Amino acid sequence: MSERAISREGERWVGAFDATTDPALRSWVDVDPGSDFPIQNLPLGVIETDRSTARCGLAIGAQVVDLARLAEAGAFDGIVPHARVVFSAPALNAFLALGRHVWRAFRERMSALLSVHASAEARTIVAPCLLPMRDVAMRMPCTIGDYIDFYASLEHATNLGRILRPSGDALLPNYRHIPVGYHGRAGTVVPSGTAIVRPSGQVVQAGGSAPAYVPTQMLDIETEMGLVTGAGPPMGTAVRIDDARDLAYGYVLLNDWSARDIQAWEYQPLGPFLSKSFATSISPWVVSLDALEPFRVAGPSQEPAPLPYLRASQSWAYDIAITARLATPRMRTRNQPSQTIVETNLRGMYWHFAQQLAHATANGASVRAGDLFGTGTISGSEPRAYGSLIELTWRGRDPLAIGDETRTFLEDGDTVDMRAVCLRDGVRIGFGELVGTISPAR
Amino acid sequence: MSERAISREGERWVGAFDATTDPALRSWVDVDPGSDFPIQNLPLGVIETDRSTARCGLAIGAQVVDLARLAEAGAFDGIVPHARVVFSAPALNAFLALGRHVWRAFRERMSALLSVHASAEARTIVAPCLLPMRDVAMRMPCTIGDYIDFYASLEHATNLGRILRPSGDALLPNYRHIPVGYHGRAGTVVPSGTAIVRPSGQVVQAGGSAPAYVPTQMLDIETEMGLVTGAGPPMGTAVRIDDARDLAYGYVLLNDWSARDIQAWEYQPLGPFLSKSFATSISPWVVSLDALEPFRVAGPSQEPAPLPYLRASQSWAYDIAITARLATPRMRTRNQPSQTIVETNLRGMYWHFAQQLAHATANGASVRAGDLFGTGTISGSEPRAYGSLIELTWRGRDPLAIGDETRTFLEDGDTVDMRAVCLRDGVRIGFGELVGTISPAR
Repeated sequence: MSERAISREGERWVGAFDATTDPALRSWVDVDPGSDFPIQNLPLGVIETDRSTARCGLAIGAQVVDLARLAEAGAFDGIVPHARVVFSAPALNAFLALGRHVWRAFRERMSALLSVHASAEARTIVAPCLLPMRDVAMRMPCTIGDYIDFYASLEHATNLGRILRPSGDALLPNYRHIPVGYHGRAGTVVPSGTAIVRPSGQVVQAGGSAPAYVPTQMLDIETEMGLVTGAGPPMGTAVRIDDARDLAYGYVLLNDWSARDIQAWEYQPLGPFLSKSFATSISPWVVSLDALEPFRVAGPSQEPAPLPYLRASQSWAYDIAITARLATPRMRTRNQPSQTIVETNLRGMYWHFAQQLAHATANGASVRAGDLFGTGTISGSEPRAYGSLIELTWRGRDPLAIGDETRTFLEDGDTVDMRAVCLRDGVRIGFGELVGTISPAR
Repeated sequence: MSERAISREGERWVGAFDATTDPALRSWVDVDPGSDFPIQNLPLGVIETDRSTARCGLAIGAQVVDLARLAEAGAFDGIVPHARVVFSAPALNAFLALGRHVWRAFRERMSALLSVHASAEARTIVAPCLLPMRDVAMRMPCTIGDYIDFYASLEHATNLGRILRPSGDALLPNYRHIPVGYHGRAGTVVPSGTAIVRPSGQVVQAGGSAPAYVPTQMLDIETEMGLVTGAGPPMGTAVRIDDARDLAYGYVLLNDWSARDIQAWEYQPLGPFLSKSFATSISPWVVSLDALEPFRVAGPSQEPAPLPYLRASQSWAYDIAITARLATPRMRTRNQPSQTIVETNLRGMYWHFAQQLAHATANGASVRAGDLFGTGTISGSEPRAYGSLIELTWRGRDPLAIGDETRTFLEDGDTVDMRAVCLRDGVRIGFGELVGTISPAR
């Protein structure tokens, strides 16, 4: 495997391929070369069909493995404790709580069962558990315990500082010391496809001083990823940064819908609240860090060096290319394709998940299986890599051309579609789609 | 009942007694006159004994009713759907999800079963379900979905503004328009008695500019109450303020432990995070709004009038007297009683729960059964009514005399004990005790 650890980009990669991510690995299940879900991926989600209640599933190509049924057939005996109960649950939480050793053993078992080297007997067990993905509805992958949203892109924080505090320093003094974050609303994290109703709230119109309760006129996206966690140590114990990996299961795409006019009026002194809490969308397939390992890269340097509890012995940045596309109702009527408005990458984030996990538990706060750590808006230094409309349009000053229309913020009927993909040596690990369409205010 | 609605304080009361809160009502279970839990109260919690797993319970005097066992005996047939399942759960969430009509019917049934007018047969059913409270361990009353902490005391917000922004306006411009709040960490809400480990975090020492990771030296209390909710409408639908009562089950005492030095460095621009997330303690018995109804009073007037969606057709203030007491290790060694440091009352809060529920859902955010709405620190206008040490000692400038010691903030081994009680016409509705002791930093 060692020769594959050296990619054509030379020193770009920190992570290496292993037996489950080997580019040469193929599945006996037919997988299109452009699929997000080759055998190297094996993402988990919660599936529901006309014939069955919600249970855990795994994506392979254009098919889904019904893990409840596969567990029933004994495929995880001796590997996943109580596998029948764990995988017949309508959420991944029980699996996430089992910890990294079980996650790894499960991955290796699934890789073996789906590989072209699988025995005829293994194929006979798996084949009846395969469902066409088009027949399956995706639910929330887990019950979210606590949802933290971070602010890990220095470029995003700088842009927001310039826009919101034009007369002050763009970056606040704590930014390079603290992985700044806050708690969002776990109960309104929803899966891809959920309609997003335009929120109403208190807004102070330009030039006014008294607020009105009106539908937001500054409805925005935030292009993010979210880390789904396993269970941490009991309350009172901080997670050491070099142990953070053991708590981190994997990533989803995340769109932290935001109402900028509501935010501007409400956020002092306790932070964003209703401007964010109406909805946060996530993609339904959770891609494990094991699948992402070959795409681990060196992150940006940090100056000043963070405090020792935030210094990791290795980099936890990932080269994940992320796009957001916008389709207006007019474009859909004309059958025009959606237009890319964001092209960014997770690799440039100032703070990585291990720092966020170490920080979030530095005071002894506990982490539960199924907690969600949003990265914060992923913005790069190029304007095309800005992850939100407030940045892309500089708070509406510079409208975006979308086909023969323009946009400052989202209008009713607009659809936002996010995608993320990792590419290396012919392996393509994707995240599926994260889509949401704006419904009119009620 | 009408003559009792007019209390000796004349127009003070807005709420009235009913058949379940009638001061003349007595239980066949012996209840001490000073008990927090007379038959007019009937609070719910989650109990555990040596002989049984956690399940739902109800307090009456110095005894606890095992509701799982009482349901098994058929006491709630036709009243609480799936009562055997609901009450044998280790959390009140399923009961909370059943809604106000069931809550009311359950209350009336329990009142009838425990009343001196109960039949001999009823007593025969209930008696085997009674457990001495001293033999019962109290767990979290419910799994907290989302925890919001508000900032509803104008006096507290003004004090904090004066302390933290001495050169600016004490009250920010949005305060009288918005029931300001933010999301706290649901996973670290813990029941009374849980040890509170002194948190460490990033602190910038006075005169310094770079942070150090050290144990907090400004560990504080926040004297609060918390509203435990039922389930609201689906996402996308705001709760009308005059419907908010239907979503509100009842109150617990709440201590939002806070590390003021960590808070000062971290809270810009996204609000408090690690300064709060290490622990929030609540009392284990949830007192229903039905039990509190006779103690409803007119709240403070609001100027300017809030926006229409925040205007309730009646007052939702409650006259609940709250105290916090402090005992130092030295006092405990000498068998000295704890000393009262806070004497405050919920009635003076600028924003009430119906406004908070209407506001928190004004953007379409949903509410789940078991969400927790903290009031924010309950401070009155008199210094003795300040609900936190940062106010009581004016951020350490004016130490408190505690016995022959002094305190600015909490020291290791200090125990804080909060109590709350409602009194009217001889009826005493109490909340039990909320206690926490500080353990040294790890």
